[in-house]
Amino acid sequence: MTMRISAERLLATLDELAQIGATSGGGVTRLTLTDEDKAARELLAGWMKQAGLQFRIDDFGNMSGVRAGRSDGPPVLLGSHIDTVVRGGRYDGALGVIGALEVIRTLNDHQVETGTPIAIVNWTNEEGVRFEPAMLCSGGVAGTFSRKYVYDRTDRSGLRFEDELRRIGYVGESSNRPLPASGYLELHIEQGPVLEDAGLSVGIVGGIVGICWNEVTITGKSDHAGPSPMRLRRDPLVAAAEIMQGVERIATMEDEVAVATVGRVAVEPNVINTIPGKVTFSVDFRHPDAGVLADQVNRLRALVEHVCAERQVTGEVNPFWTSEPTPFDPMVMEAIRASCADLDLEFGELWSGAGHDAKYMADVIPSGMIFVRSQGGLSHAEAEYSTPEDLEAGVNVLLGAALRLAE
Amino acid sequence: MTMRISAERLLATLDELAQIGATSGGGVTRLTLTDEDKAARELLAGWMKQAGLQFRIDDFGNMSGVRAGRSDGPPVLLGSHIDTVVRGGRYDGALGVIGALEVIRTLNDHQVETGTPIAIVNWTNEEGVRFEPAMLCSGGVAGTFSRKYVYDRTDRSGLRFEDELRRIGYVGESSNRPLPASGYLELHIEQGPVLEDAGLSVGIVGGIVGICWNEVTITGKSDHAGPSPMRLRRDPLVAAAEIMQGVERIATMEDEVAVATVGRVAVEPNVINTIPGKVTFSVDFRHPDAGVLADQVNRLRALVEHVCAERQVTGEVNPFWTSEPTPFDPMVMEAIRASCADLDLEFGELWSGAGHDAKYMADVIPSGMIFVRSQGGLSHAEAEYSTPEDLEAGVNVLLGAALRLAE
Repeated sequence: MTMRISAERLLATLDELAQIGATSGGGVTRLTLTDEDKAARELLAGWMKQAGLQFRIDDFGNMSGVRAGRSDGPPVLLGSHIDTVVRGGRYDGALGVIGALEVIRTLNDHQVETGTPIAIVNWTNEEGVRFEPAMLCSGGVAGTFSRKYVYDRTDRSGLRFEDELRRIGYVGESSNRPLPASGYLELHIEQGPVLEDAGLSVGIVGGIVGICWNEVTITGKSDHAGPSPMRLRRDPLVAAAEIMQGVERIATMEDEVAVATVGRVAVEPNVINTIPGKVTFSVDFRHPDAGVLADQVNRLRALVEHVCAERQVTGEVNPFWTSEPTPFDPMVMEAIRASCADLDLEFGELWSGAGHDAKYMADVIPSGMIFVRSQGGLSHAEAEYSTPEDLEAGVNVLLGAALRLAE
Repeated sequence: MTMRISAERLLATLDELAQIGATSGGGVTRLTLTDEDKAARELLAGWMKQAGLQFRIDDFGNMSGVRAGRSDGPPVLLGSHIDTVVRGGRYDGALGVIGALEVIRTLNDHQVETGTPIAIVNWTNEEGVRFEPAMLCSGGVAGTFSRKYVYDRTDRSGLRFEDELRRIGYVGESSNRPLPASGYLELHIEQGPVLEDAGLSVGIVGGIVGICWNEVTITGKSDHAGPSPMRLRRDPLVAAAEIMQGVERIATMEDEVAVATVGRVAVEPNVINTIPGKVTFSVDFRHPDAGVLADQVNRLRALVEHVCAERQVTGEVNPFWTSEPTPFDPMVMEAIRASCADLDLEFGELWSGAGHDAKYMADVIPSGMIFVRSQGGLSHAEAEYSTPEDLEAGVNVLLGAALRLAE
């Protein structure tokens, strides 16, 4: 019979952690390297040590703990983060860390000896709300960011990452970094509505989508709203509106996973009785396939050219930032699938539209993620919620996948 | 043979006035009741007195001067304003005042005795840039604004209209107001591209269009740009974009004179990687027919309802300000037409999309306007320009129309 975690203990532990930084609206504010983060770290460190883990802190403040296996090869690493956004949810990040702890506790309960060691990790500053960018310290361990870069990040009041890390007493040795590891597994709430829409508790993540950010600028001719007949206008906003409609079509005509978002718009001069002279807006394309992303930017260019020619305005597309898609490791995904099968659990497969620490881990070791359904697709909100049953199912899948990878 | 004005004198006088407040870009900054306005008023007052006019200043600072006729009934009043916006053009307003002065000078040259007196006027604070609202002192004379209301207007630095009027020495008696008058004629640059597009020097204005200002609010569901599939979104910006396209159609499908403008847009939270939660934008409808205006607001409501239902967002239309259309007097328009015919001048007929002092005059006496072609339809810009030939043609039409109305 398949081993199961203790749902009661999992929920109690998640509840206890959620007390630290609890908000009146039922959420959590626990920004990285604050006193709340320090208190949560102390609690977690106690639990890790109680679970018999070999506890260590690295030079980024990443906390990890190793449970020995039969061999002393590199461990299978499980984890996520316990920092939150302002008025965030109780499970975003915390589920992946406390779920990993529950896996260890369950293995201890059953006195299971795994082939390779299993380790758990709490990554510092995943959210990137206090210190930009996000996923700073998994990126540091993966070699994407240098230690100097990480240490010199400052928050809005000018406080440095390194100084704040030292202030809370969490500067360790670089030899304590949680790599090497044979693989990485991260359990996380979905942060989107796909699983809820499909009526599924759990999803296997195919990877982190690629992102391409574009700035579109449309320049026309500003004029009084009164004396300019419609046929003589060169109104960049009506052109922009036509393009925004087209941006939606670029995504919907591609496939089910392509998304495109216009999030930011600036109109000049932005006055009620003046035809705008210039409109700039952002276009955020996301897709698992880098080729599709490039194609979408080309389609955006063609769309802008077509609309602008027809409306006698000028348009420019500037794709100013790209993050390549990160597919997860097929063998890790297969281990998760097998774990679901062992549990007789129906699962979905989907890509993550947002970044996670697993993105940087995937650059250096075989990695994968498990998503748990989140009510209404909510995250980064106090009302974020997953049912006890879904949380339990997710951690059981994590346990089974970890066991398979540790053989 | 039809009497003609002196183009040379007209242009020289316009040039001399344009020196006061001249900008490096070839325009004029002469905000109302500033030292520049005072200097321009002194120059104009001298010219009016030299022309033998019975000069007077009223309690709003409006300057007028009467040239006697055979009878001493109410005069035909000609005028406009000499205040400008910041970095405005040389002829906006000034043409109507200096053109009226040129009419008087021409009548003097030819020793013409008109049936009724002819008077000219320079209205205070037409632009409304320093003291809101626009057309303040023609509105005061027409009874739209009380003297107390006018006197208590303040500029951005808190200076009161009355105090500034007193400072430049232009507080006169209410008995000096330029009414009663038998009719009002205003010559003005077009502030739009209609005459240029039609290849005509001069246009007869049918009236001032009605305006209806609406605020449209679309509320959807804000979300991360990444993890929300297109089909599960409720994006208010794509809905707003569809409505903006429809707003354009509401105008273009109506007739040649209907205009509709979205000038102001606010997107919340206006962040590149977040689907907006709320979009508000303005819709400015203008038309000569109040019934059409009301109909357009209804069509906007239906459009918003339709798009919002389809996209599962909610929409609201708030028509928060309306200015009724002001048709000009048929007999005054006929006098202008006859004047054009006397000059063998081809003319256009169009409505004014912007407000002018003639709007308030039309509320109390038979009024009309003559437009002169403005290059590129430009106004409120240093590059505003009308050719000497067009300026001359406009003032000749004014002369002929004034003579007919003064019979």
